[in-house]
Amino acid sequence: MKKLVLIVMGSDSDYPVMEKAVVQLAEFGVGCDVRVCSAHRTPAVAHELASGARQNGYRVVIAAAGMAAHLAGVFAASTTLPVIGVPIASGAMNGVDALYSTVQMPPGIPVATVGIGGSKNAALLAVEMLSIADEGLAEQLNDFKASMAEAVIAKDQKLQGELPTE
Amino acid sequence: MKKLVLIVMGSDSDYPVMEKAVVQLAEFGVGCDVRVCSAHRTPAVAHELASGARQNGYRVVIAAAGMAAHLAGVFAASTTLPVIGVPIASGAMNGVDALYSTVQMPPGIPVATVGIGGSKNAALLAVEMLSIADEGLAEQLNDFKASMAEAVIAKDQKLQGELPTE
Amino acid sequence: MKKLVLIVMGSDSDYPVMEKAVVQLAEFGVGCDVRVCSAHRTPAVAHELASGARQNGYRVVIAAAGMAAHLAGVFAASTTLPVIGVPIASGAMNGVDALYSTVQMPPGIPVATVGIGGSKNAALLAVEMLSIADEGLAEQLNDFKASMAEAVIAKDQKLQGELPTE
Amino acid sequence: MKKLVLIVMGSDSDYPVMEKAVVQLAEFGVGCDVRVCSAHRTPAVAHELASGARQNGYRVVIAAAGMAAHLAGVFAASTTLPVIGVPIASGAMNGVDALYSTVQMPPGIPVATVGIGGSKNAALLAVEMLSIADEGLAEQLNDFKASMAEAVIAKDQKLQGELPTE
Amino acid sequence: MKKLVLIVMGSDSDYPVMEKAVVQLAEFGVGCDVRVCSAHRTPAVAHELASGARQNGYRVVIAAAGMAAHLAGVFAASTTLPVIGVPIASGAMNGVDALYSTVQMPPGIPVATVGIGGSKNAALLAVEMLSIADEGLAEQLNDFKASMAEAVIAKDQKLQGELPTE
Amino acid sequence: MKKLVLIVMGSDSDYPVMEKAVVQLAEFGVGCDVRVCSAHRTPAVAHELASGARQNGYRVVIAAAGMAAHLAGVFAASTTLPVIGVPIASGAMNGVDALYSTVQMPPGIPVATVGIGGSKNAALLAVEMLSIADEGLAEQLNDFKASMAEAVIAKDQKLQGELPTE
Amino acid sequence: MKKLVLIVMGSDSDYPVMEKAVVQLAEFGVGCDVRVCSAHRTPAVAHELASGARQNGYRVVIAAAGMAAHLAGVFAASTTLPVIGVPIASGAMNGVDALYSTVQMPPGIPVATVGIGGSKNAALLAVEMLSIADEGLAEQLNDFKASMAEAVIAKDQKLQGELPTE
Amino acid sequence: MKKLVLIVMGSDSDYPVMEKAVVQLAEFGVGCDVRVCSAHRTPAVAHELASGARQNGYRVVIAAAGMAAHLAGVFAASTTLPVIGVPIASGAMNGVDALYSTVQMPPGIPVATVGIGGSKNAALLAVEMLSIADEGLAEQLNDFKASMAEAVIAKDQKLQGELPTE
Repeated sequence: MKKLVLIVMGSDSDYPVMEKAVVQLAEFGVGCDVRVCSAHRTPAVAHELASGARQNGYRVVIAAAGMAAHLAGVFAASTTLPVIGVPIASGAMNGVDALYSTVQMPPGIPVATVGIGGSKNAALLAVEMLSIADEGLAEQLNDFKASMAEAVIAKDQKLQGELPTE
Repeated sequence: MKKLVLIVMGSDSDYPVMEKAVVQLAEFGVGCDVRVCSAHRTPAVAHELASGARQNGYRVVIAAAGMAAHLAGVFAASTTLPVIGVPIASGAMNGVDALYSTVQMPPGIPVATVGIGGSKNAALLAVEMLSIADEGLAEQLNDFKASMAEAVIAKDQKLQGELPTE
Repeated sequence: MKKLVLIVMGSDSDYPVMEKAVVQLAEFGVGCDVRVCSAHRTPAVAHELASGARQNGYRVVIAAAGMAAHLAGVFAASTTLPVIGVPIASGAMNGVDALYSTVQMPPGIPVATVGIGGSKNAALLAVEMLSIADEGLAEQLNDFKASMAEAVIAKDQKLQGELPTE
Repeated sequence: MKKLVLIVMGSDSDYPVMEKAVVQLAEFGVGCDVRVCSAHRTPAVAHELASGARQNGYRVVIAAAGMAAHLAGVFAASTTLPVIGVPIASGAMNGVDALYSTVQMPPGIPVATVGIGGSKNAALLAVEMLSIADEGLAEQLNDFKASMAEAVIAKDQKLQGELPTE
Repeated sequence: MKKLVLIVMGSDSDYPVMEKAVVQLAEFGVGCDVRVCSAHRTPAVAHELASGARQNGYRVVIAAAGMAAHLAGVFAASTTLPVIGVPIASGAMNGVDALYSTVQMPPGIPVATVGIGGSKNAALLAVEMLSIADEGLAEQLNDFKASMAEAVIAKDQKLQGELPTE
Repeated sequence: MKKLVLIVMGSDSDYPVMEKAVVQLAEFGVGCDVRVCSAHRTPAVAHELASGARQNGYRVVIAAAGMAAHLAGVFAASTTLPVIGVPIASGAMNGVDALYSTVQMPPGIPVATVGIGGSKNAALLAVEMLSIADEGLAEQLNDFKASMAEAVIAKDQKLQGELPTE
Repeated sequence: MKKLVLIVMGSDSDYPVMEKAVVQLAEFGVGCDVRVCSAHRTPAVAHELASGARQNGYRVVIAAAGMAAHLAGVFAASTTLPVIGVPIASGAMNGVDALYSTVQMPPGIPVATVGIGGSKNAALLAVEMLSIADEGLAEQLNDFKASMAEAVIAKDQKLQGELPTE
Repeated sequence: MKKLVLIVMGSDSDYPVMEKAVVQLAEFGVGCDVRVCSAHRTPAVAHELASGARQNGYRVVIAAAGMAAHLAGVFAASTTLPVIGVPIASGAMNGVDALYSTVQMPPGIPVATVGIGGSKNAALLAVEMLSIADEGLAEQLNDFKASMAEAVIAKDQKLQGELPTE
């Protein structure tokens, strides 16, 4: 499984959230590396990972951080790969600070931001990006959408069975 | 210029904001179509555009809307292409409503959200996504980053010249 | 009991909240159907339910969803029946995102929004709407208001009995 | 034109916003009375208007107020007709205070809240409510939806004509 | 103990918060009545209590309510006594809605608002108001301030004793 | 005209807002002193004014400040007179910072907070407080309330005259 | 260990948060005094501590408080030493009120604000300030930064070891 | 005038705000360099400036940026000098995003944050930090505080002269 996605997170305490991204990517057969790397504590490591990401074979970066979440922005500054930002809910503001710090990037340096704690959606977005040039992934995404629909329909039918009919 | 990006916006009044995306894409030689299409007023058109987007040759969708901004979500529901959401500042909340309505998508249906009014960044993000499978665009993005850096450095030097040297 | 109200919710996990609406409607003798149906995962089902709602005999729609809550808006786009939106508290923003996504609809497509988690009020609002042409329901609403007042007065008297009279 | 809708507003300075509701109702042939009436300055008038609304022939109430907007709530307390609340943007908080004061009603007393300054949507919501028992209005709403769609499509086509076809 | 303060609250579930006000008033020898009374469920009772408050011997009103907290405003509309509003934290917004609904009153109808859940401060504010014409209460307030200072100083000294002196 | 109210403000630039309080007090025949005095720039002056306020004959303090508005709190710390806080809208947060800084006082030190920029209400609240022991002011407040009601009713009638009667 | 830092907090209940600052300072060999002292309950003590701080040998003040957090501002008003403000999360607003009350100081009286509950960062900021004139501390800060980086790198390596290699 | 302060800003458009800092520093005889330097567009320049700041003779860094303001954080990551962050009001959120992005730093990397647009306070805070080891600056700060107090007192007296003495 070729590792096309680089997942970076500001702290290993973010892993329980980001594990969903790893799992989701794996369901699409997309490999990833997961690295702990801080915009503030290891800026040199972050810069090195970011600036070498494309030539190391990655195609998408997912960056997760909480509070004044700068990690996605730092990566976006040093790679031309698309960077997906995942604001992590932590501290007194429960992720609103991380959302603003991730999404409100100045012109020139975009971060593709998903919802607070949206690690699963980050993985799906990465797969969608990869599907631009990968028909197989496009097919899988179609199947995924279909199975989500089926799951909702099944839940609907289950509920109909449980509700009093009159 | 092949039209790889589909830009949709909820109202033609959003065009002055989105024109920056058109211009930015053109600077990278990336063609786009721009369509007015409302999640609420023309849901059928939106659905048709979204569900046919991939086979019509588009590779990325950019969706811009204000207030309870559902357009990006509606597109994300009906295509497997990556959808970039641009929250538009309008009305009493000045775009915070649009940001929340765009970014806080439920698991399974991601929207790659940029900052409020971030049309230029939406275009750059689209180019980054396309660059996954297009070495030429990757090169251009490198050049773009370099020229942004040069512009900042030039401004810095200009400022040094203007400040009293004491 | 004729089913005049269609309750839709984005996820079966919303049912514990929406059950209060079902119960409240039943107390007025108003029947309802409850459907799980997602604006994003089953847009076709949502569209079909919405566009057929009036001719299927429904008179009011109640739509409940959390986060970037688009369900009420999607229904409002495809039916001319009044649509009541219930923002559900979920995720890091605890329903503020759902409130903004539900209430800040663009001109032309109203959603009658109640408070966050306000399922009981959604049911009462539906009954009020039905009472426009149903004297019996208007009477029942009068009785309901009277019994609410009595309950408050009883609580007041109970409290007077419990407080030290000095 | 029978006056089925009672529009109340906390101040005559709100009339420029609420005039859109009057105009919109008139386009559907729905008459209305517009009254200035304050929850705080003329509570007795408000109570009298509210408690007599149904027997005076009104079928829907629209209440508009800014800041700590209590008017819709005060009406909802004293009538069993559906009350639509329009938060008005005024003062330092630009309507967020009015939105919260209008929508976050306690269980038992619903207010059908539309977006900040959403007077046009308030009118449409009133028409939808009236359409429950008025096939003619239901037809008109269908036509209204169709003409909104046509307007969006026309704007889209106009834009296509203006954009460089390259 | 003459009952100079009327405490009203929207629900008996607010009593655990408001009990602190009762206790605080009692420490100053100020009597009070506590009434459950809803702006929305028993508007007539509220109006009657408010409009008769002064001639029934009350000198200050304290009104506590949550969510779209209208109770203080409704009292302020119908009495010329000073009305102190206590926003109660309840529901998804944890009292921010109640704060805005209480404090942002339109010109002409003031509510003396204390912090969210600030029942103790409401009592002290009532005593301060009563002290305008009651030298004895002014003295007691002086003593209260002194004892608060002493308590802080004692805590400071205790902490000094516990910290390592090194 | 005896000066019963002390108005303090953090900056003379707040005077245009606070002038409304001076005018409103004068209409009730209540005199006031207006002082510029900063919690941060002249803390000693603030402390002296506050701690001497009662014996200098004042009965109520009104304190107005913007941003991290500490002035009301500083006065409340050093007097047992009731202190009314007026949050002033200034700077990037437009008064929300001042509101929170004024109203969220810790237990023991209440500030009677009015809405952002609510100088007129501050004056009325002061008069209400003074009316506790001044029957004449209570009468005037009754008249004031009556004239406010009349003004609203007059505006209502004027509007009725202007609207098309059809 | 010379006591160069004065830590003040509004309540002894803040000590569990501020203890991290004490510990962090101690790791740099910087001594501190910790005082309980309230802007509102013991303003005289606060003023005395603040105005004597420099000549008592302190070089930096750290002030922690919650809600309408005035303590840092009060200290900043009466000393020319740098004052670091730590907003404490408490009450219904969870520290957002304290953040605004601490950081939004008017021109002339700065408070160096750290994040909500950021006691450890307050200590580090104090050490950085002291390092301006203390080469030894500058060295230690370099070591601290290096050890933080090493800790992140170690966590990264540990994670690599735990993740499935394929 | 030795240049002890390094002012960096994300864009030359921030200079009108930051000029106040330059002027304020000059009034204390403290020299500074002003550099345009972007966390995202010129990360290498930022890193170089930051990591060399101390040995280049700077003693304090002031970093100003808007939106997802990472500049202060990036500097704090690469220097052990104290870094003062100035959130700039720009874009749809008017500086709240910049405030959160600047102040909510993770443990280990403090930024001394001043209010939105608080460039003058940033300069004063820098002078306070420098005064730790510079008696002369401490004296000047005392004089500055005294002159601020005098200015307020003068404004107060001017106002007394202008108000009607009755």
